[in-house]
Amino acid sequence: MKLYGRNPVLERIKSNPRSILKIFVQAGHPESAYVHEKAKKYGIPVNVVPGSKMLKLARDVNSQGLLAEIEKFSYLPLPDVLEAAKKKNATLVFLDELNDPQNLGGIMRSLGCLGDFYIVLPTHHSVEVTETVLRVACGGDNYVGVSKVANIAIALAKAKEEGFWIAGSVVKDGQDLMETRFQFPLALVIGSEQKGIRDVIRKQLDLLVTIPMANARMSLNAAHATTILCYEILRQRKNDTSR
Amino acid sequence: MKLYGRNPVLERIKSNPRSILKIFVQAGHPESAYVHEKAKKYGIPVNVVPGSKMLKLARDVNSQGLLAEIEKFSYLPLPDVLEAAKKKNATLVFLDELNDPQNLGGIMRSLGCLGDFYIVLPTHHSVEVTETVLRVACGGDNYVGVSKVANIAIALAKAKEEGFWIAGSVVKDGQDLMETRFQFPLALVIGSEQKGIRDVIRKQLDLLVTIPMANARMSLNAAHATTILCYEILRQRKNDTSR
Repeated sequence: MKLYGRNPVLERIKSNPRSILKIFVQAGHPESAYVHEKAKKYGIPVNVVPGSKMLKLARDVNSQGLLAEIEKFSYLPLPDVLEAAKKKNATLVFLDELNDPQNLGGIMRSLGCLGDFYIVLPTHHSVEVTETVLRVACGGDNYVGVSKVANIAIALAKAKEEGFWIAGSVVKDGQDLMETRFQFPLALVIGSEQKGIRDVIRKQLDLLVTIPMANARMSLNAAHATTILCYEILRQRKNDTSR
Repeated sequence: MKLYGRNPVLERIKSNPRSILKIFVQAGHPESAYVHEKAKKYGIPVNVVPGSKMLKLARDVNSQGLLAEIEKFSYLPLPDVLEAAKKKNATLVFLDELNDPQNLGGIMRSLGCLGDFYIVLPTHHSVEVTETVLRVACGGDNYVGVSKVANIAIALAKAKEEGFWIAGSVVKDGQDLMETRFQFPLALVIGSEQKGIRDVIRKQLDLLVTIPMANARMSLNAAHATTILCYEILRQRKNDTSR
């Protein structure tokens, strides 16, 4: 896999250098000395290349002069995620059949900023963690564990067994987010951009929550909606004195 | 100007049909009957075109079979925005030298959903409301008035004179958003993606606010940060009993 761009590559060097196979840096890049120093420390080969070569390597992507070959993205097993999330009162975010890599990348970036979130994706009919996703995530992938499961409904049932409370985001008819008191540990379900949460999943929800819309015909982009929900969850989690 | 895509065009037909000069709809489009009915009511010419023609009209953009020629985007004069915002306790969002149309479009969509926000942009060194912005805004442009001013610092001074409290979002060293109590009426300043808020603007702020980052090296995308801030502002505005 390739990782493109200044922030994604620098963040990876800092947080997870062992996953980097090789770094390409454009000749004269301002971060060149730093990259060389770190690469030497971790034994990562560095290729300094002219701008024209960088353009070729990066194909249509703006690499900002930095590109890394990295190991395949490693998904976490669901049981590990459930255990870790429970231990630190982290929140699980189930993305049910999301299909825009910009949205998944944007969500990973936001959750990496907010902290203590895990993502669960289904194997089928879903975007996965691609090069585009990593580029948009801007390093968030180093802070948000992602699990991939064959069946979201079964995974939710397991989370419930482990004591997670399950909330689902719906465009309308849910409880107003501003009047909702979440219970922890919490799992949040986000539906696909087009169809929302599937019926088979809806049945498992302890609560339907809706971000109030001032203008009824409008709806939020899935990544923005997830960011708002996770901000509100974090706000309440910080005030959560039940633990 | 052209407006591309199902949601942007349908929302414009519903909220602001008088600004539409002509509609192109792809033959067999599921919304075709609805479009014709509305167009007839408002005297808007409709061209039904085959898919190949639609591709040509939309150039590289996915039009989803709907495209409209519309009047130039109309910016509002600042004095009108100040007066209207004060009257309904709406919040002003000053975007200081933002330059990514995806971000401006994303912000317009989110603020259109949340309700009662106005945007102020500087004339220079800033993205403006382009076709790309309108497409990403997904109809938000019908609900968020935008003003364009020669000088943001002067505009902020005018807002202050009118009694607005000025908060600015900074990546670090501001007051923690979760511990901030905003005062209303409020103006929020967002800096550029690269440089943040300029010094000349910083001097005018009554408060610096920071969205707390779990991971110090990460930062939010400007549109996601603005969305979180405006959600929190709305939450507090709803509870604001001082008025």
